[in-house]
Amino acid sequence: RIMAYGKGDVFAYRTHLAPLKGVKEIPESTFTGRSNIIFGANIRVEVGGSAFLSSFTEGDNRLVVATDSMKNFIQQHLASYSGTTMEGFLDYVGKAFLLKYSQIDSVKLTGEHLSFQEANMFEDEEIKKSPLVFNHSRNEKAVSSLHLIRHGQDINVESRESSICDLQLIKVSGNSFVGFIRDEYTTLPEDGNRPLFIFLNIGWNYENSKDALGETPSLYVASEQVHDIASSVFHELETPSIQNLIYQIGCRILERFPQLQSVNFQSQNHTWETVVEEIPGEKGKVYTEPKPPFGFQLFSVTKEDLKTNSSKEKKANLK
Amino acid sequence: RIMAYGKGDVFAYRTHLAPLKGVKEIPESTFTGRSNIIFGANIRVEVGGSAFLSSFTEGDNRLVVATDSMKNFIQQHLASYSGTTMEGFLDYVGKAFLLKYSQIDSVKLTGEHLSFQEANMFEDEEIKKSPLVFNHSRNEKAVSSLHLIRHGQDINVESRESSICDLQLIKVSGNSFVGFIRDEYTTLPEDGNRPLFIFLNIGWNYENSKDALGETPSLYVASEQVHDIASSVFHELETPSIQNLIYQIGCRILERFPQLQSVNFQSQNHTWETVVEEIPGEKGKVYTEPKPPFGFQLFSVTKEDLKTNSSKEKKANLK
Amino acid sequence: RIMAYGKGDVFAYRTHLAPLKGVKEIPESTFTGRSNIIFGANIRVEVGGSAFLSSFTEGDNRLVVATDSMKNFIQQHLASYSGTTMEGFLDYVGKAFLLKYSQIDSVKLTGEHLSFQEANMFEDEEIKKSPLVFNHSRNEKAVSSLHLIRHGQDINVESRESSICDLQLIKVSGNSFVGFIRDEYTTLPEDGNRPLFIFLNIGWNYENSKDALGETPSLYVASEQVHDIASSVFHELETPSIQNLIYQIGCRILERFPQLQSVNFQSQNHTWETVVEEIPGEKGKVYTEPKPPFGFQLFSVTKEDLKTNSSKEKKANLK
Amino acid sequence: RIMAYGKGDVFAYRTHLAPLKGVKEIPESTFTGRSNIIFGANIRVEVGGSAFLSSFTEGDNRLVVATDSMKNFIQQHLASYSGTTMEGFLDYVGKAFLLKYSQIDSVKLTGEHLSFQEANMFEDEEIKKSPLVFNHSRNEKAVSSLHLIRHGQDINVESRESSICDLQLIKVSGNSFVGFIRDEYTTLPEDGNRPLFIFLNIGWNYENSKDALGETPSLYVASEQVHDIASSVFHELETPSIQNLIYQIGCRILERFPQLQSVNFQSQNHTWETVVEEIPGEKGKVYTEPKPPFGFQLFSVTKEDLKTNSSKEKKANLK
Repeated sequence: RIMAYGKGDVFAYRTHLAPLKGVKEIPESTFTGRSNIIFGANIRVEVGGSAFLSSFTEGDNRLVVATDSMKNFIQQHLASYSGTTMEGFLDYVGKAFLLKYSQIDSVKLTGEHLSFQEANMFEDEEIKKSPLVFNHSRNEKAVSSLHLIRHGQDINVESRESSICDLQLIKVSGNSFVGFIRDEYTTLPEDGNRPLFIFLNIGWNYENSKDALGETPSLYVASEQVHDIASSVFHELETPSIQNLIYQIGCRILERFPQLQSVNFQSQNHTWETVVEEIPGEKGKVYTEPKPPFGFQLFSVTKEDLKTNSSKEKKANLK
Repeated sequence: RIMAYGKGDVFAYRTHLAPLKGVKEIPESTFTGRSNIIFGANIRVEVGGSAFLSSFTEGDNRLVVATDSMKNFIQQHLASYSGTTMEGFLDYVGKAFLLKYSQIDSVKLTGEHLSFQEANMFEDEEIKKSPLVFNHSRNEKAVSSLHLIRHGQDINVESRESSICDLQLIKVSGNSFVGFIRDEYTTLPEDGNRPLFIFLNIGWNYENSKDALGETPSLYVASEQVHDIASSVFHELETPSIQNLIYQIGCRILERFPQLQSVNFQSQNHTWETVVEEIPGEKGKVYTEPKPPFGFQLFSVTKEDLKTNSSKEKKANLK
Repeated sequence: RIMAYGKGDVFAYRTHLAPLKGVKEIPESTFTGRSNIIFGANIRVEVGGSAFLSSFTEGDNRLVVATDSMKNFIQQHLASYSGTTMEGFLDYVGKAFLLKYSQIDSVKLTGEHLSFQEANMFEDEEIKKSPLVFNHSRNEKAVSSLHLIRHGQDINVESRESSICDLQLIKVSGNSFVGFIRDEYTTLPEDGNRPLFIFLNIGWNYENSKDALGETPSLYVASEQVHDIASSVFHELETPSIQNLIYQIGCRILERFPQLQSVNFQSQNHTWETVVEEIPGEKGKVYTEPKPPFGFQLFSVTKEDLKTNSSKEKKANLK
Repeated sequence: RIMAYGKGDVFAYRTHLAPLKGVKEIPESTFTGRSNIIFGANIRVEVGGSAFLSSFTEGDNRLVVATDSMKNFIQQHLASYSGTTMEGFLDYVGKAFLLKYSQIDSVKLTGEHLSFQEANMFEDEEIKKSPLVFNHSRNEKAVSSLHLIRHGQDINVESRESSICDLQLIKVSGNSFVGFIRDEYTTLPEDGNRPLFIFLNIGWNYENSKDALGETPSLYVASEQVHDIASSVFHELETPSIQNLIYQIGCRILERFPQLQSVNFQSQNHTWETVVEEIPGEKGKVYTEPKPPFGFQLFSVTKEDLKTNSSKEKKANLK
């Protein structure tokens, strides 16, 4: 049966965490590391264990770790964490939790990385990035998750994922959507050149789960890099659909980072409606917000796809 | 692999749907039916099928039903639906979808019932409920879901759930939380009488899945009734924890509705903090909003629990 | 120049405040009072005074009341408040603030009344309203505001308003919108029978400002009553536009409550779009959510209007 | 009396508007212009005029411009607008509105500039900014407003403001708040070094209102520049309070842009609470989200202040 409890919205901001350095550089991105002067986290912890049954059926709280204590546990472990990544912190605090409380059989942790970007300052006649002042960003966010299960003396990683969520990308031209089924329910016209506006969540898993922690920085995949791959592929591709776009983004990510196993997509279509199709003497158009319904796609790309896709590309190049 | 697509936020408002009448009455609730003068729905549809692979890998749209057409399909089927419930509508539209499009192997549907409550009017020297004017409610909402899978010539119900979400209930006194673990991470004091403020989602499943559709109204469980059971049990119980409260609510629901199989809970604790503990000469206190972290519970109650709980209660009564 | 500071989102929940009883009853409403078992408030305080200039220009904090202290002041005064209404509480705490801190010249207070509605319970073989368990409502809300200015030894009420905000009312038929200007920018068709969906904020002011406090309950106008008048008038009227609807609601409010001076409206039009115009053999239609742009109206109705309107109605009746 | 109506949330996205070039460069910012490949706007229009009274009192729609037509008017004028800024567009569409409809006496327009930032792409072995793919930013936003009134044959600018809203800036150290009033309502400790987290809205007005339009780019003040001045001053200053910080930001803005008349601030304090004060062997701390109440400030800085402040600074430098 379902039986678990925990704490959500545990906010913890750590200043001067060790910086992340030495990641592998890729052609699509200028990303080289994170200062971690502010490491912001919104953590959710959920614990399970058959020992908790009587707390539900009898109201017996003797084995219950108060969720308020879970919050304290997390915040204090962020103080003692010596690594550099959210994935590493979840691993650190999750294992400590299972070691501390033997009545807990499993822990699920989710960590949203709250983004603070270096603001501009003027110093010594130059504009630089400030080491003191930061802009809180409310755009795309990195989210990591971890599921640990106790097996006897061992703690096993049941699953682990890294992701970037709430990307909102628009390509103003070079996108078509044609050739789909037309029947009595179809009112959407075909469109050979639409301004495709998508919302994207992209998740990734490592072949060797420990590579996610950032302890070997050259094997760590940063969400900033995944973001830049997504925008680059979008730029390069004449898109026939969102379906095909995310497939191509997935293949590129796996190509750049062979240490990954698979990439998962949740995409949404928020393409504008055209209100002025032609402006005399001008290149532009005028669009407006669509009605609420939005299309969406769910898809995962694996290493197998990469092989198939590469051989197709080779054939295409030979022609 | 994960592969699906669909449409979200498909809003459809039907006026003058057939009313829901003849539900079983229970002691905790005055609910007897719904006029359905406004039947408001926010639908999400997700379809799957291996035939869609080439739409991702090749951008081949020939088998693709545009999500815009899915929206039209849903809205037009709400016009022709002759039943009385969200569960029934999802069943009707989901099966029609699988019959219409043979390349689709499975459909997941979620329907949020948008609530419009009869407003007051004054007519013939009396205050009555208006059959024309309604208040749009933004409080708790009923949500249904359905997963259909094609198996050869058949369409099978993989899962179906009814639920009420975003209930926010507070009991001003008669709640304790004591006896939990105290260690170096514990700062929360024990509290013998707190104003317990909970957010609740409650889901339920029928033993015979078809009973959910409302075609036999006496077997249909209305979200309004589940709401009233929750508040009644909360009133009656001296709560030692949210864990125990939801267990007792679950047992009562299963007791009132033997046609159900199980009840699922997602609860959150949003209990206020005390700022003025004692007001001279007064019974009341002053509280304030807590900090963001909130505790939560996930739990399911089944018919088995009901038996155990009943025999416990009998023993307690014998003492 | 603009110069002020203060505190927002000061949440304060008082239990067992004295109940509001003895309000004047009106034909459109069953409202007779409030138990005030939970009196929930979200307060905003803003203070002004020329003495604060050096805190801005010099960073001199010697005259600064910390906004954290303002929060404490408000919460502690809610403990000692012996009245029954939000309007009364703002008056009480605002005057106390000016008496306590002589460097403050003016105070603006806004109080949102957080609504908790008695939940159902089953007791003694009957369904009753529980005195312990409440539903937190997220629908329409009552909001009061007050502006006090120190003049020498006196504290004057510069302005005071009561209001009900975020009403969402729909009338499914009996609404037209025709006869408006048609030109090259017009694409909206005339509509002789639309389902008019409006969002409403309604504010009111008393001729004698002190009547707002609730100390003489028979002169107090409750937001619940204003709500019921709005829905009743909406029910009665064949509406030619929102403009005319709010005018008629305003006249009715002033007719019921001669102690008021004027009524202010902010209305929005969120009328659905029709997607299925006719359902064979059925009365209903299917609608959907409109695109984001919404029409709005701002209007005030005064006692003068009431006279004009009454004489028009008489003439109409004579015909 | 209050009498107006209009349309809100009119979204209009224009592609390939003429770029903004030739703005004055300032030391604090690298900003030099906007490509305007996507010019996104969320417009609100509100019109007034005594001619509309009968539409309220009589439901006479003969002079009513439907708000749907207003939406069309705005979207079509964005197609024909040949300038480069939001301020310019509001001026263009507002005046056109008053010329078209003689029964309208006044127009208020607000335009939120929806931000789309060039995404990264990889081309010709280099990472560049894409002219096709953009990130939709949900961070700080530029908002302009304009109030036009008809006076006989003339249309006068009653008021005009440019602003940047929802800046969220944090400085991790170098902020104090001490020396404020301590009394029986004070529980906040003095703090000599806090991580000050502020939300900021900054508005500005030009001495010569037409300079706001961007027709003479060297006189146009871009919101991006105001943003960079705010972060630079925050970096430079040891802040004794938010009050003083915004005063200093205002003075710097007026110093850089002598064409401005005044600068208006709305600031909020969202400073974190400390949960781990000291981490052995480390420089950092751990903080968490505060409770909901937030302090705020409202202040305007004028040219007069600039003179006073400059002479103070000179004196300080002479010592």
